[in-house]
Amino acid sequence: METLKKRILTEGKVIGSNILKVDSFLNHQIDVSLLNDIGLEFAELFKNEKITKILTVEASGIAIACMTARHFGVPVIFAKKTDSANQDTEVYQSEVYSFTRQKSFKIRISKKYLTAADRVLILDDFLAAGKAVNGLIDIAGQAGAALVGVGIVIEKGFQPGGRNLRARGIRLESLAIVDGMEDGRVIFR
Amino acid sequence: METLKKRILTEGKVIGSNILKVDSFLNHQIDVSLLNDIGLEFAELFKNEKITKILTVEASGIAIACMTARHFGVPVIFAKKTDSANQDTEVYQSEVYSFTRQKSFKIRISKKYLTAADRVLILDDFLAAGKAVNGLIDIAGQAGAALVGVGIVIEKGFQPGGRNLRARGIRLESLAIVDGMEDGRVIFR
Repeated sequence: METLKKRILTEGKVIGSNILKVDSFLNHQIDVSLLNDIGLEFAELFKNEKITKILTVEASGIAIACMTARHFGVPVIFAKKTDSANQDTEVYQSEVYSFTRQKSFKIRISKKYLTAADRVLILDDFLAAGKAVNGLIDIAGQAGAALVGVGIVIEKGFQPGGRNLRARGIRLESLAIVDGMEDGRVIFR
Repeated sequence: METLKKRILTEGKVIGSNILKVDSFLNHQIDVSLLNDIGLEFAELFKNEKITKILTVEASGIAIACMTARHFGVPVIFAKKTDSANQDTEVYQSEVYSFTRQKSFKIRISKKYLTAADRVLILDDFLAAGKAVNGLIDIAGQAGAALVGVGIVIEKGFQPGGRNLRARGIRLESLAIVDGMEDGRVIFR
């Protein structure tokens, strides 16, 4: 997606060889106009898949999921990362390790909102090692839902998450794939 | 907002005298079509305010903020609750106590994205004691930004958050105000 790649090149900040900061438009400040284009792109890519639910994980994935779900007319479900007094006790859950935060946490979705009748699209902002997406796939599997595919805004192609999903035969659509970051520069696939 | 009140009456779950669960359409599963109507309502209410930024806090606020920001053509900034290796060190921050989670946490917004030139609308899903909204108002004040108002989907009118904001002369628009919950029933103002 060319408009996205242009934004990454002009506004993305490369830190070391692994961190790509895009918090001016994607995951702190959100350019809703760009997200609208992103939502349209995912809608076009998955239009024939009879999707019934879009799954993501809090927090940055929520914006992307909502701006995409509009075009399908389906609900978003976002997995919760934190314990809350208000949460259902009947949940599907999966353990996720975050390299950014250097700790494991559980993600949870209430059993009420995901069933074997669902056709699920998983969306997230970044795919690196793939831990969060794998947690969501695990949860969709626990519910017996059909996984239609995974849509990612920025895939770090030099980390194994994308490769592993493709090797499992899962349809993965990444709008931008970064194959390397050298001397502060982003190299797209 | 009548469609919202109807959804609260038909799908909201009252637990005790204080907890109103609306996770079938607002803060776990998200009905994007309802959120679209909510965004339109906020857009109409604040249309003359020359808003430049919409502020919220992760996670549930993000969906509401994005679906509203579309109509203003302005960016969303969501305050982060968690430490991250990727976060800027130059941040405005405020301490927030969560009754749901029974602990204090810091919310942060990078100084790059909020300035004295901004006219800010704060949006969130719930207003109860008002701790999260007060944290966002504090941050907007630190940046010297003008606070245009606060938009809330569900205000718990029997808790002091809304009363305190109105007493400070802050424009508060709550799409549904719940004045009490008795025997599992919701009573609107």
